Amino acid sequence: MTKTDPGRFFEDFRIGEVLRHATPRTVTEGDRALYIALTGSRFALNSSDEFARMLDLPSAPIDDLLVFHLVFGKTVPDVSLNAVANLGYAACVFGVPVYAGDTLTATSEVIGLRETSSGETGIVWVRSTGRNQRGETVLGYVRWILVGKRDPASPAPEPVEPDLPAAVAPGELVVPAQLNLAGYYGEASGSDHLFEDYAVGERIDHIDAMTIEEAEHQMATRLYQNTARVHFNLHAAKDGRFGRRIVYGGHIISLARALSFNGLANGFRLAAINGGRHVAPSFAGDTIYAWSEVLEKMDLPGRRDLGALRLRTVATKDRACADFPYQGPDGKPDPAVVLDLDYTVLMPRR
Amino acid sequence: MTKTDPGRFFEDFRIGEVLRHATPRTVTEGDRALYIALTGSRFALNSSDEFARMLDLPSAPIDDLLVFHLVFGKTVPDVSLNAVANLGYAACVFGVPVYAGDTLTATSEVIGLRETSSGETGIVWVRSTGRNQRGETVLGYVRWILVGKRDPASPAPEPVEPDLPAAVAPGELVVPAQLNLAGYYGEASGSDHLFEDYAVGERIDHIDAMTIEEAEHQMATRLYQNTARVHFNLHAAKDGRFGRRIVYGGHIISLARALSFNGLANGFRLAAINGGRHVAPSFAGDTIYAWSEVLEKMDLPGRRDLGALRLRTVATKDRACADFPYQGPDGKPDPAVVLDLDYTVLMPRR
Amino acid sequence: MTKTDPGRFFEDFRIGEVLRHATPRTVTEGDRALYIALTGSRFALNSSDEFARMLDLPSAPIDDLLVFHLVFGKTVPDVSLNAVANLGYAACVFGVPVYAGDTLTATSEVIGLRETSSGETGIVWVRSTGRNQRGETVLGYVRWILVGKRDPASPAPEPVEPDLPAAVAPGELVVPAQLNLAGYYGEASGSDHLFEDYAVGERIDHIDAMTIEEAEHQMATRLYQNTARVHFNLHAAKDGRFGRRIVYGGHIISLARALSFNGLANGFRLAAINGGRHVAPSFAGDTIYAWSEVLEKMDLPGRRDLGALRLRTVATKDRACADFPYQGPDGKPDPAVVLDLDYTVLMPRR
Repeated sequence: MTKTDPGRFFEDFRIGEVLRHATPRTVTEGDRALYIALTGSRFALNSSDEFARMLDLPSAPIDDLLVFHLVFGKTVPDVSLNAVANLGYAACVFGVPVYAGDTLTATSEVIGLRETSSGETGIVWVRSTGRNQRGETVLGYVRWILVGKRDPASPAPEPVEPDLPAAVAPGELVVPAQLNLAGYYGEASGSDHLFEDYAVGERIDHIDAMTIEEAEHQMATRLYQNTARVHFNLHAAKDGRFGRRIVYGGHIISLARALSFNGLANGFRLAAINGGRHVAPSFAGDTIYAWSEVLEKMDLPGRRDLGALRLRTVATKDRACADFPYQGPDGKPDPAVVLDLDYTVLMPRR
Repeated sequence: MTKTDPGRFFEDFRIGEVLRHATPRTVTEGDRALYIALTGSRFALNSSDEFARMLDLPSAPIDDLLVFHLVFGKTVPDVSLNAVANLGYAACVFGVPVYAGDTLTATSEVIGLRETSSGETGIVWVRSTGRNQRGETVLGYVRWILVGKRDPASPAPEPVEPDLPAAVAPGELVVPAQLNLAGYYGEASGSDHLFEDYAVGERIDHIDAMTIEEAEHQMATRLYQNTARVHFNLHAAKDGRFGRRIVYGGHIISLARALSFNGLANGFRLAAINGGRHVAPSFAGDTIYAWSEVLEKMDLPGRRDLGALRLRTVATKDRACADFPYQGPDGKPDPAVVLDLDYTVLMPRR
Repeated sequence: MTKTDPGRFFEDFRIGEVLRHATPRTVTEGDRALYIALTGSRFALNSSDEFARMLDLPSAPIDDLLVFHLVFGKTVPDVSLNAVANLGYAACVFGVPVYAGDTLTATSEVIGLRETSSGETGIVWVRSTGRNQRGETVLGYVRWILVGKRDPASPAPEPVEPDLPAAVAPGELVVPAQLNLAGYYGEASGSDHLFEDYAVGERIDHIDAMTIEEAEHQMATRLYQNTARVHFNLHAAKDGRFGRRIVYGGHIISLARALSFNGLANGFRLAAINGGRHVAPSFAGDTIYAWSEVLEKMDLPGRRDLGALRLRTVATKDRACADFPYQGPDGKPDPAVVLDLDYTVLMPRR
């Protein structure tokens, strides 16, 4: 009997099944420092314990996307080791903040299954949940993937497709309970632009760019204990479809968010990911640029001190974003686009 | 008079001499995070303070191999700066666990000397010991190296060769005193395979693989404050034997151990290295695979909750290990093999 | 109205203006670990909490140059985003030590302005100050840069040039108040060479060398939240003057300081940078070597236990320093030289 885990195939998933993922992880100041070194993130709240205390938080919360990657990484061995494609994200809500010293665990519930017409693959929807050591939810999201079948002849399960919202509703966004923006000051972020200053339809070129190295995306992906083979094995990849290692899509999300600081510096908290698509793969040597559009401005129940901006951030490779590349007239993505992310940030009001 | 240290030559070592190595080092959460980012290690006990507390430890112990590399790194300037070859390890015992905040120092006693027949080099055996700030031993091992002579004409010392055990005996293995496996649960590691499930002679292909980048092995080796020049100086290496930088052999050991998680996830503690050989050098661009064989199963005096597995882990480069590559019919190593490590891990019993 | 910050041009600076830089940063053990991994620094005081306590400090101070880079990085978006050249440093004094957990902020006062004869650029002098969460100065320095004008037709300001000292005077150096060298022991650094052992005019080849990788200098520069584009954007750089990314000059200073450990191991504290020049740019693939000359030996008011060594450290690329390369007979820099740094370290006396 083999002791190694080859990953699950489509037949191995059952509706309602709950997978408890391995390797609980205590998040530390070491993870935070590496996240800054790998992405260049400059958001003040995640960088300064003093600034966090001015907002009545106990210390600087861990970057929201670092929490996302740590939870996501745990799900990989049980969910997506045999994934053919990463189809989408939805209903991703960031919960209670994570602080250095917290320990994260993750579970995934299978909430959808549908065999594809070829009979060789199937789509699996899972709702993954990250929790801290007190059992509080730090993150929940739905992800769906295309997974290979072990045996094409095995029968198709009853199809179940979950209803997914187009966007996380304002009432479902989590504002940290003790957060008090009276102490917020623009000098910390270097920007005076607050909630009132953004208009729906406004587009922002983030100007800056970041070239990815193999060592960087590998270190980031290993930091998250994500074991997806396509990111790490050149020996196998060189005979594969792309001839090289693929950058973990989450690393592109992190780079785009870090670049967005120049233009969205006061979007201090990622509250939700409404949907997202890795439009094309990225590779070492690619230079990532990004631009954003304000999709929606939302009030938050019971909070007059902040609002929520729903944003689309588009990342490109090897192409500046002064003209906001997105789609051609045929509706197909611009060939430079690698990421199309619809998400919501919290921002102070005046 | 020169202020720089050119390293010791064979004539500089005396039997019984104790070398006190420089740069005491406080191990931190930053070191742990980097170790995960550089190796992909996923062992639950080293990742989670909460899991460690369930086993009655104060917090997550620092990875055993990170402790090894930190101690080893300190010895390099005094022991092996002029080493021609790293000949072997033996009798390596991991002592009290190291926790973040502990400060490590190292000493080495010269326990063997033998000039080689050429008269131009000699073999030096040292017993190196790492200690924490309370003077407790965290690691002890014997290492022997081939060292150049400063002057081939200098007289040979009286040859002394230490007696070294083929393997560390079960009674010499250190089980952390307060460790209580009642709280151990397989979900933390993602594997149900415990001590009883492994059979002597069983072989495990660890499947996964990891490609090494120059920045990665350099960062790992510098993190350990290991100053061996062959790892860092391309300008000198390009005219040398290999034409490029050599990866620190310990980095290969760490990658092999991290890969072995897939198949040995409950081997939660490295207790001993019985012997080891870097069969061939590794370079940036190499993809490391690994497989293991169970050599021996050992009871531990006074402990019914765990046992010790003596393992051989073999690492290869650019070659999958489904057929367990090791030696040809002539007894020579398979050309893909880079590491042959004989070591002992602790594993819970049912 | 654009939300992104394009950086200041020459016209945007006013004499006496104080710029408050963004992103307060809590320095952590994670930053320390990354600094060691990226530079190979081995100074005992910055590596060991236990050694620091023997000297009556509360814990190991953060490396002085890591503090410098963190403060410097904050100034970049406001000061040098449109810099054409980095002209020099002067009057750099390291203040109270920084410990893990301290939060750093930075300001810069404009103290000099002079349009150049071309009318297309101007020189800006700023005095930058880094402070901890108690408002204590951890670092102060003057830097001057050549900055482009937005509009060549805009009128030249009244020229103001600050008086800058050739070197920081001994009385201005900061010795941490509680520092007590009675507990200093040479074994921690691995060197017996103390203040009395160095002679003015003495030159030291630091022997060791370090090859730079793209991932390494990018990670270091991002760790400092330094946003200068030339370090990160291959897509833009490939059509630029050098066809590739330029290594942050501060990374070369850190490598030179780390290499200087071999020969100056007891120069435990950087007290001042008197002046410095990046003689030529460095790129990934370059191997950095270094040598130092003792320029001056200084007593410190009220301290018999230590002295100050004023040093010149010269870094070269792809050239060993056994013959101390510096200038040709024509006074022009040796073509291998990349850094010429005049600075002051503290060192124990016997």
